Amino acid sequence: MTDHIAAHLRLPAGPVDLTAIETDAAPGFDGGKTEGKAALAGMGAELADLQERLWAERTVGSERRVLLVLQGMDTSGKGGVLRHTIGLVDPQGVRITSFKAPTEEEKQHDFLWRIEKGLPQAGYIGVFDRSHYEDVLIARVRNFADADELERRYDAINDFEGRLAAEGFSIIKCMLHISADEQKARLAERLGNPEKHWKYNPGDLDERSLWPAYRDAYEIALERTSTDTAPWHVVPSDKKWFRNLAVGQLLLDTLRGLDLQWPAADFDVAAETERLAEETPVQ
Amino acid sequence: MTDHIAAHLRLPAGPVDLTAIETDAAPGFDGGKTEGKAALAGMGAELADLQERLWAERTVGSERRVLLVLQGMDTSGKGGVLRHTIGLVDPQGVRITSFKAPTEEEKQHDFLWRIEKGLPQAGYIGVFDRSHYEDVLIARVRNFADADELERRYDAINDFEGRLAAEGFSIIKCMLHISADEQKARLAERLGNPEKHWKYNPGDLDERSLWPAYRDAYEIALERTSTDTAPWHVVPSDKKWFRNLAVGQLLLDTLRGLDLQWPAADFDVAAETERLAEETPVQ
Repeated sequence: MTDHIAAHLRLPAGPVDLTAIETDAAPGFDGGKTEGKAALAGMGAELADLQERLWAERTVGSERRVLLVLQGMDTSGKGGVLRHTIGLVDPQGVRITSFKAPTEEEKQHDFLWRIEKGLPQAGYIGVFDRSHYEDVLIARVRNFADADELERRYDAINDFEGRLAAEGFSIIKCMLHISADEQKARLAERLGNPEKHWKYNPGDLDERSLWPAYRDAYEIALERTSTDTAPWHVVPSDKKWFRNLAVGQLLLDTLRGLDLQWPAADFDVAAETERLAEETPVQ
Repeated sequence: MTDHIAAHLRLPAGPVDLTAIETDAAPGFDGGKTEGKAALAGMGAELADLQERLWAERTVGSERRVLLVLQGMDTSGKGGVLRHTIGLVDPQGVRITSFKAPTEEEKQHDFLWRIEKGLPQAGYIGVFDRSHYEDVLIARVRNFADADELERRYDAINDFEGRLAAEGFSIIKCMLHISADEQKARLAERLGNPEKHWKYNPGDLDERSLWPAYRDAYEIALERTSTDTAPWHVVPSDKKWFRNLAVGQLLLDTLRGLDLQWPAADFDVAAETERLAEETPVQ
């Protein structure tokens, strides 16, 4: 049973202390790695069915769509979630947007400008690999924005997400939560494997040295931007299988909650059936 | 063994007679549906590995990318290939672009304008669900372009694809080839299943009545635009499992042919390993 995972992960209102949230737990799930992988695979058929309904609804004018926001420190596994969880659904209905350091053009605009451009259209499951939250995380740690601007941004994010929810977006926000030790092990693994050297760059260690500042920035951002319409989930991510399973469950819960229906025909089914049966033979 | 499929599907130079190419065959493959599905699943690991190498190469400046063009009559299974074959690879590295009837803005530009915008960036496997070929197919059948313009377009397409190949694109063009009877059965299935009514619209039967004109348009387009750098493959598609397997094999052959290598580290691996080991403890 995985139905209770979401309740464990949803962040309660109030101050956030990430050191009090375990990184290697599997809250709400009774099994281990083997059972966890099987449980994720077992979601595939229902996820695919619900996604196709979401996609189908768009053909009759529904504005509904899903936006999954993935945030986390380097090596926390955003890419792994994309591969293993999002990889379960039809790629036609998925739009993945990765946000890197902003370009010069992007810097000329408000921080939400490029985010707007990356939003999924109706019917899609959109996934943000990093997001507008970088603008209150690295921006805070690296002083890319001053205190007033950061204050403005928390409110702007809440306004923005509130507007999206009103427009038909279901927003799922996940902070992939790993320990500093786990990150160290993952970086060491990259350094030890020539096939993974391309994933590493020396700047990763500079960012790592700022771990406490990033934790502070996350705690503030999570507290300020976890709302009823777009709550944060802190996903214990030292166990890759639990991380993938938990995000899958959150996605499944969200799609189930939409009560998605197959659109009714907007044509005369009997007449079309007869027309097809009695057509002039096609050669 | 599926290695010989591509040779069977590649269109030879010269006039094309689609009525002479079987739609329900499985050329180059000895097994049936069960073996075919297993063979496709068996490609997954190698496809994923090669795709990640392609993706990794982009981080060191490679311009290489793949463009898979899917064309075919309604119900020929473009969506099925996306779900079952493209669904095998990491969605992060895939960009799917679906081309519908051009918008008013698109009509104000050359037919290749919107195509350029939909091209995959370096490192990606791009998939066109319909493509610039619509501009010599439906455009020819429905007289959206006059004879001179159609003539110009065949040459423009060859120039365009030649330029892409020179820029690092590997182009795989697939015409999903079904019989008129198979299309009739698939349309009847849609009409008979309320969960599939959303996929049907009465205009489908109007297009179907033009089957011979579409076949002519395909035959001309295939002959005029099958080049050494971007040859056409005609994929027998009455058997869905063979269609999915064949496109998978073409993709696998293409990726294998790129001799993709993991990028070498552009930093001092030993120094970084030591730096990580001797860091000030992170809390």
